[in-house]
Amino acid sequence: MPYEKIPYKIYLEESEMPKYWYNVRADMKTKPAPLLNPGTGKPMTAEELSHVFCDELVAQELNNTDRLIPIPQEILDFYKMYRPSPLVRAYCLEKKLQTPAKIYYKFEGNNTSGSHKLNSAIAQAYYAKKQGLKGVTTETGAGQWGTALSMACSYFDLDCKVYMVKVSYEQKPFRREVMRTYGASVTPSPSTETAVGRKILEEFPGTNGSLGCAISEAVEAAVTREGYRYVLGSVLAQVLLHQSVIGMETKAALDKYGIKPDIIIGCAGGGSNLGGLISPFMGEKLRGEADYRFIAVEPASCPSLTRGKYVYDFCDTGKVCPLAKMYTLGSGFMPAPNHAGGLRYHGMSSILSELYDEGLMEATSVKQTDVFAAAEEFARVEGILPAPESSHAIRVAIDEALKCKETGEEKTIVFGLTGTGYFDMYAYEQFHNGTMTDYIPTDEEIAASLAKTPKLS
Amino acid sequence: MPYEKIPYKIYLEESEMPKYWYNVRADMKTKPAPLLNPGTGKPMTAEELSHVFCDELVAQELNNTDRLIPIPQEILDFYKMYRPSPLVRAYCLEKKLQTPAKIYYKFEGNNTSGSHKLNSAIAQAYYAKKQGLKGVTTETGAGQWGTALSMACSYFDLDCKVYMVKVSYEQKPFRREVMRTYGASVTPSPSTETAVGRKILEEFPGTNGSLGCAISEAVEAAVTREGYRYVLGSVLAQVLLHQSVIGMETKAALDKYGIKPDIIIGCAGGGSNLGGLISPFMGEKLRGEADYRFIAVEPASCPSLTRGKYVYDFCDTGKVCPLAKMYTLGSGFMPAPNHAGGLRYHGMSSILSELYDEGLMEATSVKQTDVFAAAEEFARVEGILPAPESSHAIRVAIDEALKCKETGEEKTIVFGLTGTGYFDMYAYEQFHNGTMTDYIPTDEEIAASLAKTPKLS
Repeated sequence: MPYEKIPYKIYLEESEMPKYWYNVRADMKTKPAPLLNPGTGKPMTAEELSHVFCDELVAQELNNTDRLIPIPQEILDFYKMYRPSPLVRAYCLEKKLQTPAKIYYKFEGNNTSGSHKLNSAIAQAYYAKKQGLKGVTTETGAGQWGTALSMACSYFDLDCKVYMVKVSYEQKPFRREVMRTYGASVTPSPSTETAVGRKILEEFPGTNGSLGCAISEAVEAAVTREGYRYVLGSVLAQVLLHQSVIGMETKAALDKYGIKPDIIIGCAGGGSNLGGLISPFMGEKLRGEADYRFIAVEPASCPSLTRGKYVYDFCDTGKVCPLAKMYTLGSGFMPAPNHAGGLRYHGMSSILSELYDEGLMEATSVKQTDVFAAAEEFARVEGILPAPESSHAIRVAIDEALKCKETGEEKTIVFGLTGTGYFDMYAYEQFHNGTMTDYIPTDEEIAASLAKTPKLS
Repeated sequence: MPYEKIPYKIYLEESEMPKYWYNVRADMKTKPAPLLNPGTGKPMTAEELSHVFCDELVAQELNNTDRLIPIPQEILDFYKMYRPSPLVRAYCLEKKLQTPAKIYYKFEGNNTSGSHKLNSAIAQAYYAKKQGLKGVTTETGAGQWGTALSMACSYFDLDCKVYMVKVSYEQKPFRREVMRTYGASVTPSPSTETAVGRKILEEFPGTNGSLGCAISEAVEAAVTREGYRYVLGSVLAQVLLHQSVIGMETKAALDKYGIKPDIIIGCAGGGSNLGGLISPFMGEKLRGEADYRFIAVEPASCPSLTRGKYVYDFCDTGKVCPLAKMYTLGSGFMPAPNHAGGLRYHGMSSILSELYDEGLMEATSVKQTDVFAAAEEFARVEGILPAPESSHAIRVAIDEALKCKETGEEKTIVFGLTGTGYFDMYAYEQFHNGTMTDYIPTDEEIAASLAKTPKLS
């Protein structure tokens, strides 16, 4: 199709929107390794998982076989409020870079939570409601997941209890107030509400909290209350399944105009966005129907794929969750203060870890200051103010487009723009003032952290 | 068309987007009163205005006759980046209210500046660039206009100098950093950069600044620099003209589905959003082709239409700008601290003032706490976190829908949702904590302020 015919933004009609999530595990020859019970070292059973997670979500977590999972009508109805998200042709960025590459981005920030997290939040809230639960508990760091879950719970009239890392609770009062606007209760973690919180406060009075601690509190709050379950916004297979709506829409929009991407790029923390974006394309590659380059972009400060090890590890620093086989830096790895809060996770989705290990996907890491330079360049020509997390993908998309400029290749590049940066302006301020620093862990630091991964018999 | 066929969000195809701005003055029998030179009391000439404003914008300001003004291609191209904005059917709100009314809102917050202000900012920046200027100056209070102008100037590579009221500069560092991300220079006002700023600082050391002072600084900075002009985000006829794109799109989208609104509602500060939204509908009413109810909603703390006087007054507290005939509370009126910063203006667009005076439009005022209650109710069911300004329209739309519930009437209500509230979370926090107060000026306060309007011979 000629250049002129492709609109700036490709929207799908309601009738063209995906009715199914795509489960990439169905097409994987080697399935992702199962979650293990840390006590027994045996695969977690559905019964064991059901104490923590909703029944239907447990079933999705363990489903390695069904390729297409119908999206329930109630979730489709909610999706209609903010989906389809636009697939944007970055004409202005292309012009600025003077590249022959064609750049597209799938923008997931056009909803109040400001990110793609809402796609899974609404699904998890729906299944909790359907099971007749009173509410759900979760933790949040940067706050995107907590915001998304608050919106979803408000929609289904579910109680939502968020443990927010104390330092974020204090430094990000706006995020906290958005959650309260949607009716969530937000508790700074560690708190005196839980046994694990009280223990930590006794041991480390005045601590600022950590994501690991907040997870432990949220899990305790779920399992000790009647009618509550714990929910998580990334890493899990169920989350990648829900996020496949991003990839399904992207593929439908590209197919509508006969566009075939060469490279698909996404930022990767726990893997929910990248996994969702690439899923249906990876399916084609796994089935031998098409070939694509996939690039996972992680921060140089927390490089689990590029510098971690593919082993079983704890999903949380508190070591209360099951073991997952994944690329990890060790559950005790403490990433340097990096403003891309959503990418500060020591591990990576088991699905993406397996695909990467098999060489089906590439990975690269980028430095924070380079990421913000790309973010600002993008904002000035494309208008959207990107989240730091999303800007990792922008950085690599620009780099690939500049390579095309050198070689003259007209490659088609698609990247995931996961969200907006309205609540990250402190980081932008540091960048403007020249006080932003880069941090790259030493080999010794990573080795020391990895030495503590569990030994399985 | 049956209920089921109308999508949640009505988007226009690129080919259906308006190519013209609609100039409502062309259809007004009594034209809005001209701007007057405060020295001579005579109508401002194009030559006089051209020292402050770009030539093409002066022509638009004085154009009372051309009904349709073609939108230049460069501006259409920019509009494509974030327009058409969605016209959303508020199915979830209707269900929550159990009203037979059909509610639609035109959502202008889907761009990084977070509001409709970008529609005029890009036009003003374009004409400045076309005239070969180096840059533009402006003031900003709440920051939405400054953000929009920064984005527009970045796109056309124009220098952008923003005088930001000092108290906002300090209390809204995020807004400031968004502007800096787009390359604008942001100066807290009053500053030592201008003669008027130095004078004010000498007289009132430690002052927090005011919009009036910031306007004076911005105007001085424009007229004393080679290649600069001053730009303004509301009140002026040229701004309403650019904002008519909102109404043109709304009308095209409604016409596409054969929907005829009964009531059209918008918040009103200087009038840019309301004027833009209603323009083409008002045109039909003026030409006798259709009838609609139009409702302007203003804050009870700054009620220019509902409690002001229709007289000539200064547009700024510094009294450096021309006189405009408008509904005003007096240029010295100091609105109580009200979080809807964009509605804290003492006057109202001359166009809307004239239409209101002729009884073609209604006006009402609402209290801040009632506005935030509506904002929260809306956010919880419709997802979008509304700006305080926009929430004034939500309040009245809900009230009108509830009246329909009582009478059983199936009225169609359209309101303008001008922007998002991401940078207004302090106000939401006050609302959640129960520390938000309402303020309504006394008759004596308003009379005292109005007594100081200029006496024209």
